[in-house]
Amino acid sequence: MASLISRLGHCVTPNALRSYLAEFISTFLYVFAAVGSAVSSQKFTAGNVAGPDSSSLVAVAIANAFALSVAVFVSANISGGHVNPAVTFGMAVGGHISIPMSIMYWISQMLASVMACLVIKVATVGQQIPTHGIIPSEMTGFGASVLEGVMTFVLVYTVYAAADKKRGCFGVFGPLAVGLIAGANILASGPFTGGSMNPAHSFGSAVVGGSFKNHAVYWVGPLIGAAIAGLLYDNVVFPAHSSPQDPLTVTADGRV
Amino acid sequence: MASLISRLGHCVTPNALRSYLAEFISTFLYVFAAVGSAVSSQKFTAGNVAGPDSSSLVAVAIANAFALSVAVFVSANISGGHVNPAVTFGMAVGGHISIPMSIMYWISQMLASVMACLVIKVATVGQQIPTHGIIPSEMTGFGASVLEGVMTFVLVYTVYAAADKKRGCFGVFGPLAVGLIAGANILASGPFTGGSMNPAHSFGSAVVGGSFKNHAVYWVGPLIGAAIAGLLYDNVVFPAHSSPQDPLTVTADGRV
Amino acid sequence: MASLISRLGHCVTPNALRSYLAEFISTFLYVFAAVGSAVSSQKFTAGNVAGPDSSSLVAVAIANAFALSVAVFVSANISGGHVNPAVTFGMAVGGHISIPMSIMYWISQMLASVMACLVIKVATVGQQIPTHGIIPSEMTGFGASVLEGVMTFVLVYTVYAAADKKRGCFGVFGPLAVGLIAGANILASGPFTGGSMNPAHSFGSAVVGGSFKNHAVYWVGPLIGAAIAGLLYDNVVFPAHSSPQDPLTVTADGRV
Amino acid sequence: MASLISRLGHCVTPNALRSYLAEFISTFLYVFAAVGSAVSSQKFTAGNVAGPDSSSLVAVAIANAFALSVAVFVSANISGGHVNPAVTFGMAVGGHISIPMSIMYWISQMLASVMACLVIKVATVGQQIPTHGIIPSEMTGFGASVLEGVMTFVLVYTVYAAADKKRGCFGVFGPLAVGLIAGANILASGPFTGGSMNPAHSFGSAVVGGSFKNHAVYWVGPLIGAAIAGLLYDNVVFPAHSSPQDPLTVTADGRV
Repeated sequence: MASLISRLGHCVTPNALRSYLAEFISTFLYVFAAVGSAVSSQKFTAGNVAGPDSSSLVAVAIANAFALSVAVFVSANISGGHVNPAVTFGMAVGGHISIPMSIMYWISQMLASVMACLVIKVATVGQQIPTHGIIPSEMTGFGASVLEGVMTFVLVYTVYAAADKKRGCFGVFGPLAVGLIAGANILASGPFTGGSMNPAHSFGSAVVGGSFKNHAVYWVGPLIGAAIAGLLYDNVVFPAHSSPQDPLTVTADGRV
Repeated sequence: MASLISRLGHCVTPNALRSYLAEFISTFLYVFAAVGSAVSSQKFTAGNVAGPDSSSLVAVAIANAFALSVAVFVSANISGGHVNPAVTFGMAVGGHISIPMSIMYWISQMLASVMACLVIKVATVGQQIPTHGIIPSEMTGFGASVLEGVMTFVLVYTVYAAADKKRGCFGVFGPLAVGLIAGANILASGPFTGGSMNPAHSFGSAVVGGSFKNHAVYWVGPLIGAAIAGLLYDNVVFPAHSSPQDPLTVTADGRV
Repeated sequence: MASLISRLGHCVTPNALRSYLAEFISTFLYVFAAVGSAVSSQKFTAGNVAGPDSSSLVAVAIANAFALSVAVFVSANISGGHVNPAVTFGMAVGGHISIPMSIMYWISQMLASVMACLVIKVATVGQQIPTHGIIPSEMTGFGASVLEGVMTFVLVYTVYAAADKKRGCFGVFGPLAVGLIAGANILASGPFTGGSMNPAHSFGSAVVGGSFKNHAVYWVGPLIGAAIAGLLYDNVVFPAHSSPQDPLTVTADGRV
Repeated sequence: MASLISRLGHCVTPNALRSYLAEFISTFLYVFAAVGSAVSSQKFTAGNVAGPDSSSLVAVAIANAFALSVAVFVSANISGGHVNPAVTFGMAVGGHISIPMSIMYWISQMLASVMACLVIKVATVGQQIPTHGIIPSEMTGFGASVLEGVMTFVLVYTVYAAADKKRGCFGVFGPLAVGLIAGANILASGPFTGGSMNPAHSFGSAVVGGSFKNHAVYWVGPLIGAAIAGLLYDNVVFPAHSSPQDPLTVTADGRV
């Protein structure tokens, strides 16, 4: 019992509590922009015969890219700037955060996402909250999981690179890189899976939008992709003992 | 009397006067791009049967994001780069600027905004200046105030993070972060409130556009949101005595 | 005579010649992207009944913003990254470059712009090169000059801020800031003047596009705006003897 | 024989193997976003009478810009962040990487590109993968090669600038600059050549899309452009012995 308390003690320090709050605020601001931009696009294209178009996808992708960069930036020095249960899972797999703290992070992220969707629904007097989903005639659940898994692999790999102190001053670009890759992946997958890469985002919009159809896709793929990214980066691609090279040039021993 | 003069003396030092000029120029360039892009979009979509569309919203959001980043950047080391009465209010609530100086900042910002709108109106030979407003059948004043308040909370929270010296070299990203979150929020709220988050912007376009309808929405929400952000960041999320963590990783005591 | 040679000697040092080449390459790459994106947009909207739309403007604005950032970045440490006769003029007014060197910069920039337009015209087998111009029924030459002047003022003011060593590590953001403000201004002025802010760009497209109609607008406004920006920044807003403040916060003497 | 082994030994060190993996992952993530965004745009514009439009081009250009920045960032300190056979060729011409290692880089990059296209094709249940190509009635193979060559020259020139340690802290902007210039060039050349600048990207989509029509254009132009950029930057524009200038200002001897 005493052992359990001492093991969980690190989860209730002031710093830990501040981390949960920072994750809550960052996830809230990200999901607010992500879901809000989808609602806005939906409103604009409501009258379209052709349905959503490229400019709606651009609007949603840019909103995600910009907001995620900022969400990571504002919480980076406090909670590590996860803003995403898949990132937290990938960090836990790599041993960078304990299991109990991960659970608290997940709870913060999911509460924040539900809250952001609720604020949008209430403030816009009842706009429908769009949920992530696939069109059964065009996509299989397996294909969608693969897409989401590959994209989350890329995202978490980028987060590992952004957090890597071996990169020196390059790290300044980290939060922006995380946002940009999310935006690029949304442009790549928009009409197929919606480009979630973030189970909390999908969960919040499912709860408030009222549809859990195909919801498993947005957990299975991302969590597997995140775990592989964490294991690969730390152990194979750029282990702690390897020496960083000069950016954009190959080491001297690579010359003729 | 002597006491009053000594209390107000810091408002008329050369540095203070330069601050007002820097705020004037930065707010001018921001509102010029923000309102100008709205006028341009309006001109393009004038012939549309469907009215504004996602690509107009993207144009306005990008113009706001880019221009606000630059506006904050060019005045950051001179006036602090507020460019927004709500930011100045949030900084005053946190004790980072005196009340008399705040008032001078507000005056500079509002004059600059009116000036920017006038230049656009005159140079384009009388294009209508679009004002911020809501469609009564679709939005309530309360809902709009909540949206603007939430978004301004997020904006001012980002400004606090950007100004936080505890973040070290991450601060380079600060001015860009402020612009990006403004752009993301405009994409999220465009068809509902227009996404102002800046009472000076709304004021300038209302004066030159000639309509103060629902104008209170763009002061009440933002000022409340800004005050909450200022109090929360400094006192709870990231107080001065707390130690920054490595970006994107959880402290050692968070490991298993 | 000897005096003339000694006065002009600094214009033919290896470093100076490299500067002209760097300006040539940077202006070439900028004008290539700026004019190329206008040609591409023109091709897409050729079939439109409604003519150009917001998404064309977004395409052109983003191409300008991205390419100008890169153009400034790649030549910043070699030639100062002007890429624009108006910027060179603004720097000459502030005493940061000699008159003879400015003339060499102008020649490089204008040759590069003509060359970029020629490459596009030849490689695309004769697409029409769009020139900057105004619609007489909607704009006056004076209004257009004011718009271009105001936007170039803002651009050159940003260049001065970006070049200001008093800003410390913030300067990393400089080249990006220059590109972003160009993009924002194009979004603000696209349907009115086209948003040039760069006489070399306008000159090159006028030569290859074959129309010098209203060409004076794109020299008079920008050169006046640039001169004012140079004088204002160095002498009033942020003189060399003034001390920089912490980014985003007001100095201690501004507190209550 | 022993000599051959010793000459090739540097290609199979753990660092070298990690470089190939880093190039594979970075090229995969870049091509995934680049080709995925083209597939998504194609799906949205399938019903359009007018075919592709500016907003599709914006979507593709932004996806390329964002993903390439991130791809360069995550591999910069490991493999040098080439992500492109033309960049590797340009680096080999400048002597920054050996021929045997270059070949291994090319193999990694091309495998990754094929893999990324396969994942998209399989996961989307058989969407057609768009290939780079030209419309014979509108473009000549020579014109297309010139366009691709010029754009790749600009790209590789930017990579050289980004990798240049003489630029000090400016280098932080390097990976972003590489992505931005790719995006700008795609906006400039989209309707003409598609804006590849990357033979691996063109190769992967040709293999999976099943069409090698005009494929030579996407090798000849880029490789020539890359070689010229490498020779010019190192030997003429900014040789190792030349001293960097202050960003955005001309050296003291350039003053009057």
